[in-house]
Amino acid sequence: VAVDEELAALAERLQARCLAAGLTVGTAESCTGGLVAHAVTTIAGSSGYFRGAIVAYEDDVKERLLGVPREVLAAHGAVSAQTARAMALGARDRLPADLAVSVTGIAGPGGGSADKPVGLTYVATAGPGGVEVARHAWTGDRAANVRSSALAALEMLVAAAEAAVPA
Amino acid sequence: VAVDEELAALAERLQARCLAAGLTVGTAESCTGGLVAHAVTTIAGSSGYFRGAIVAYEDDVKERLLGVPREVLAAHGAVSAQTARAMALGARDRLPADLAVSVTGIAGPGGGSADKPVGLTYVATAGPGGVEVARHAWTGDRAANVRSSALAALEMLVAAAEAAVPA
Repeated sequence: VAVDEELAALAERLQARCLAAGLTVGTAESCTGGLVAHAVTTIAGSSGYFRGAIVAYEDDVKERLLGVPREVLAAHGAVSAQTARAMALGARDRLPADLAVSVTGIAGPGGGSADKPVGLTYVATAGPGGVEVARHAWTGDRAANVRSSALAALEMLVAAAEAAVPA
Repeated sequence: VAVDEELAALAERLQARCLAAGLTVGTAESCTGGLVAHAVTTIAGSSGYFRGAIVAYEDDVKERLLGVPREVLAAHGAVSAQTARAMALGARDRLPADLAVSVTGIAGPGGGSADKPVGLTYVATAGPGGVEVARHAWTGDRAANVRSSALAALEMLVAAAEAAVPA
């Protein structure tokens, strides 16, 4: 109902790989508000590898539930490579999961600044192969930016899952 | 992009009421996989009242992150009024939020039993006015059952928010 074919196709590919490799997955989401988890769980059988998600919309929830250090938030802001990295590591540790993805960005229309414009988004994965962080600068409206972020998160999850050597 | 008009209309109504009454909101989701949080956050300005979500797809995540007692899960199962109640109270306490909703159900196509068929879903709210739990027996496919559960969750949130006397 609520997820388009491109998101669903990535979720199916992720599920096939994770079930085959015995990898569990979780998400830590800010601007996507749970869309990555929702996309993953539209696929029947996702309970075989998907652990859950922490949607940390407020900064103190990022601290409390994901363990993002207050100093990281204060020094770099919620929308930063450092916070994205800490969110992914926090989800991996606390759910726990073998592989976690995080998304933090400014979906708009409000919340942007000269330094950090609407559309700026960081996506990170933390898994057996270490941590990867990607920076994006989307130029759509709120809905388009959220969708682009969710697609980017699923693409990074698939890449990390396909690169992971099964334990 | 990913949320239909009926979900979005409820999310808008919830936002208007919560911003007016100074209520914060969070979700604890199992079968909806983050769809309630995603619907809420499609509305611009949702960061003014939405705290976040804990998507607890696996039982031990319900225990770990939502504090659902192991005895409740063992005695009543993950899909039960008792677990729904504990999930809502856990989200309210741990995010924290003034008002929390929980959803736990069997979206299908797998996972059903004679006792607990596909479509069985419990939705609970925990807020200033106490705890409410509702039982549903959906008869759709996986996507339809998830959507029905998300609609029911938003409807209960709106009712609880409208009944709440501002602090």
